[in-house]
Amino acid sequence: MTDSLELFALDGIPEVTPGDDLPALILKSAEHRPVLTGDIVVVTQKIVSKAEGRLLSLRNIIPSEFAVQWAAQWDKDPRMVEVVLRESKRIVRMDHGIMICETKHGFVCANAGVDASNIPGDDVVCLLPEDPDVSAMNISQSLSQALGFTVPVVITDSFGRPWRKGIINIAIGAAQLALFADYRGKADTSGHELRVTVLAIADEIASAAELLSRKLDKRPVVVVRGYSWETAAGRAQDLVMPPEQDMFR
Amino acid sequence: MTDSLELFALDGIPEVTPGDDLPALILKSAEHRPVLTGDIVVVTQKIVSKAEGRLLSLRNIIPSEFAVQWAAQWDKDPRMVEVVLRESKRIVRMDHGIMICETKHGFVCANAGVDASNIPGDDVVCLLPEDPDVSAMNISQSLSQALGFTVPVVITDSFGRPWRKGIINIAIGAAQLALFADYRGKADTSGHELRVTVLAIADEIASAAELLSRKLDKRPVVVVRGYSWETAAGRAQDLVMPPEQDMFR
Repeated sequence: MTDSLELFALDGIPEVTPGDDLPALILKSAEHRPVLTGDIVVVTQKIVSKAEGRLLSLRNIIPSEFAVQWAAQWDKDPRMVEVVLRESKRIVRMDHGIMICETKHGFVCANAGVDASNIPGDDVVCLLPEDPDVSAMNISQSLSQALGFTVPVVITDSFGRPWRKGIINIAIGAAQLALFADYRGKADTSGHELRVTVLAIADEIASAAELLSRKLDKRPVVVVRGYSWETAAGRAQDLVMPPEQDMFR
Repeated sequence: MTDSLELFALDGIPEVTPGDDLPALILKSAEHRPVLTGDIVVVTQKIVSKAEGRLLSLRNIIPSEFAVQWAAQWDKDPRMVEVVLRESKRIVRMDHGIMICETKHGFVCANAGVDASNIPGDDVVCLLPEDPDVSAMNISQSLSQALGFTVPVVITDSFGRPWRKGIINIAIGAAQLALFADYRGKADTSGHELRVTVLAIADEIASAAELLSRKLDKRPVVVVRGYSWETAAGRAQDLVMPPEQDMFR
């Protein structure tokens, strides 16, 4: 049983550009503080998207009439609005210049995860990875092969949420990690059955890592050491609640 | 700047009963692994409620007609339903035997935080602390006085959330800790201004600690070491989003 955890950020990850070999960059930056058996590697979405070339120049975007009209109303860039619409399956809410979207993956977040921060150049925006679970599996497989043991990978992004202020990091992609700790049917410390206790530990790991990565710093990779994870074919996609089961929606 | 974090659970916290001196129990269990300057102490709601005597015997509860009728419909204990109603300011949703409530504090969660797990005895339920921020401040002041330095305290509970499966730990009470890391107006690594980047770090700290406390284990206190927090008169109450500003609601 885990009784302590250590988290550290890998230093020296350079500015990532399309086509970069992310696992190689991670291994190189981990040379002085190696990734060990049992470690989980947590990577922010931004560098995954960059490596995968999920960058878009707004200069090539021709906004629709709807995008132009809404952008004008709220003093937004119509090309950005257009990209957000294209990345969305559904608009959850659209007001005061803010777009809360359901992405094609089923994630609910501002601007469908399209983001202009931490990207060199003007008029370039970053999209979420096409399939963050595949991205995570690719990184996990490369790291595991190079190191000779299984390295679970979590890909994170910072999302707002209903009811509460501020954004927190959650898992948008995962590989080789059981995403939930399921206590249903087990007895608690007093012998009573715990009923609805399924903990989304992948999200908790994402949040823990954020405490080190911090938005302003170039620290996109955090190693979580000491957590007694179980391996599983879990996909972060499984963290998306089906609408018909969502009592909070 | 923080570049690594250590989290460890304090062992040896006994079963807490009403009237117990929680800071004294924490200090005693920390004897072999002392709390140091810079540490944050994270405490689960359950032991705070127990120490504060926020336990209720269902045997004394006379359920209302509404509670009786709804409980019968979903095979629930009408006395438990009654307590949940009494602890709620508003019912957000009530279906399939599940009650999503807004508590008197403004938190949105299942059963208004009323919980029958990890409580010795039958027919006893545990309520959230009356004011978890006051609880946190009391613990913080006692620990700080005994140790001679400021010890921020976070009180946590596990809540479900819209859109996503599984519950995660969040902060329901806090003292001496800036709850948010506010990057608005600062430049990112590429020199662009970060717009809506206010991170709810108190919630992220709560989630990180949960990875160690785990529901089934008697590990209600976790020490977070290495996080470069700022002290502030922050109350976890400030994490509650005012409805009129809540774009996700």
